[in-house]
Amino acid sequence: MAAEMAEQPAVLAGLLHRREDLVAGARAVLPERLNGIVLVARGSSDHAAVYGRYVLEAAAGRPPAMAAPSLHTLYQVPVDAEGYLAVGVSQSGETPEIVAVTERLRAAGAVTVAVTNAPSSSLAERADVAIDLQAGEEHAVPATKTFTAQLAAFAFLAEALGQAPWSPQDWEAIPEAVEAVLADGSPARRLAATIGDAPGLIAVGRGFLYAIALEAALKLKETASLLAEGYSAADLRHGPIAVVEREFPVLAFHVPGPAEPDMLDLVGVLEQRGARVFRVVPGDGADLPVPSGLAEPLAPIVAVVRAQQLSESLARVRGLDPDAPAGLTKVTPTK
Amino acid sequence: MAAEMAEQPAVLAGLLHRREDLVAGARAVLPERLNGIVLVARGSSDHAAVYGRYVLEAAAGRPPAMAAPSLHTLYQVPVDAEGYLAVGVSQSGETPEIVAVTERLRAAGAVTVAVTNAPSSSLAERADVAIDLQAGEEHAVPATKTFTAQLAAFAFLAEALGQAPWSPQDWEAIPEAVEAVLADGSPARRLAATIGDAPGLIAVGRGFLYAIALEAALKLKETASLLAEGYSAADLRHGPIAVVEREFPVLAFHVPGPAEPDMLDLVGVLEQRGARVFRVVPGDGADLPVPSGLAEPLAPIVAVVRAQQLSESLARVRGLDPDAPAGLTKVTPTK
Repeated sequence: MAAEMAEQPAVLAGLLHRREDLVAGARAVLPERLNGIVLVARGSSDHAAVYGRYVLEAAAGRPPAMAAPSLHTLYQVPVDAEGYLAVGVSQSGETPEIVAVTERLRAAGAVTVAVTNAPSSSLAERADVAIDLQAGEEHAVPATKTFTAQLAAFAFLAEALGQAPWSPQDWEAIPEAVEAVLADGSPARRLAATIGDAPGLIAVGRGFLYAIALEAALKLKETASLLAEGYSAADLRHGPIAVVEREFPVLAFHVPGPAEPDMLDLVGVLEQRGARVFRVVPGDGADLPVPSGLAEPLAPIVAVVRAQQLSESLARVRGLDPDAPAGLTKVTPTK
Repeated sequence: MAAEMAEQPAVLAGLLHRREDLVAGARAVLPERLNGIVLVARGSSDHAAVYGRYVLEAAAGRPPAMAAPSLHTLYQVPVDAEGYLAVGVSQSGETPEIVAVTERLRAAGAVTVAVTNAPSSSLAERADVAIDLQAGEEHAVPATKTFTAQLAAFAFLAEALGQAPWSPQDWEAIPEAVEAVLADGSPARRLAATIGDAPGLIAVGRGFLYAIALEAALKLKETASLLAEGYSAADLRHGPIAVVEREFPVLAFHVPGPAEPDMLDLVGVLEQRGARVFRVVPGDGADLPVPSGLAEPLAPIVAVVRAQQLSESLARVRGLDPDAPAGLTKVTPTK
């Protein structure tokens, strides 16, 4: 896991090098009149798709749906995907239900894009266009370098769809910022020692960082066997905040931008309840610092690396092997 | 909470009495050519919307999107909702972000339906058509009677959109089945005593019952301050299952239908890991029995009542007041 995390700056630089071609390739197959968007994914890829859900809507004005695979694979409901863009996301390109659902949407009229790390996979070969992550083989069960590569792929797709809320120049800082985070592992080790054997944790973000709260919680579950749950700041207020008692650990993600005031307000509420709030933010007061000055919609690509480091460190604190969590396999054969 | 739970058979019977009118009313405003569907909700209403996501796609063939309110309220992204059906769901009809997002979608071309318990609310008054739940005032913070009423409202909307996978006759059994569950509180009390002070729990379902796993987890968090998380069977296998160690409690929802074999397989995997699996199912071997013979897509309306009972009982076992969880209010003013 640690070795694959370290490859992320190079993987991202490689993707950025191909950015214009990948954007043009996707743009060439888009429906003339876009009725809607549907994203097909599971696990970490599903959290990349949640990020995609935000950047694609910001660019296209259409609210993307997250596919419910069972409706296709188990219930075989009728589908009308005329004028739809369907994006299938799978590191291996071989998760049976992701392949089956994307194929079914294509047969019902959707233009399909595959986001995979395997250009000869079933998913990539059957799609109208494939974004090959070229992240190199990923051996550790917890996805790291393919996850950040998937985030970049979704951002490219947003650029293909319309006016994305960042500039080409904003990209340049990203690989370097990831590099800076990777070079500084001590905050994550310190925080892992602090969290120790806590029975649960909540991760929270809002807007573009919501997907990272989800992914942080999944990584902590997979690698450290910690019952962590990810929330948007608004969803947390609608009931789940009831579990936050004295000393309950909360991991809060925010960077300057339209969502930050709501996050700061929430952090105040959590601290009033006695929670131990750990901040993944730029600047002073950060428990896990994020480089400052990043474009907010691209900052998730950097912030999630802090969550990877924390998960890897916490697994070791808990005496677990982060590369091979008990009972998990690299390709999960869900139908 | 218990008193409002007890009103559910009457509330559902009242809705069924108005079923044909409500279906016709929604059908009358639907776009001629439906491009897509977007659902706007938070908290328990959001879980009703997840159920809606399944029944609406089953009837319409279009994959509904769950709105990301922050894109509207904080980021003000451009919106193109031409040919869309937008459904705003809020018990009070006054949650600011639900009102604002639904309004913004309407201004961008969507036909809007309000599902509320308050026909004079901002949400209901501004929508093209309102489904008034007529559930009577709900005082307890945890939503119960309005939740099952919202499920029925979404099922009616599915009937308005196309061919729903149940018959009008299937409805007749529902209020009576809810009544039978309510008359039998002892299984929930027994299970609450067994769960006791467990630090966490996972609720799991698949297909139409996935939404109930989410709602069960929320109810347990809200009322009993138990860190419970809801999953689909497939999502649980993609990583989170790593937290399921010996004696970990899992609440599994299934009824006969296309999703049941996958659930039975998962229960086997969980038991191999040493989990304590508690079944919310029809027939023998149920920890929380559900009446048998219900149409699978409508069974969630009954199964969730078992989760309500468990939450109410577990709150009492833990010395908490289920009606007024610490720090929660009935209307959560998220923006």
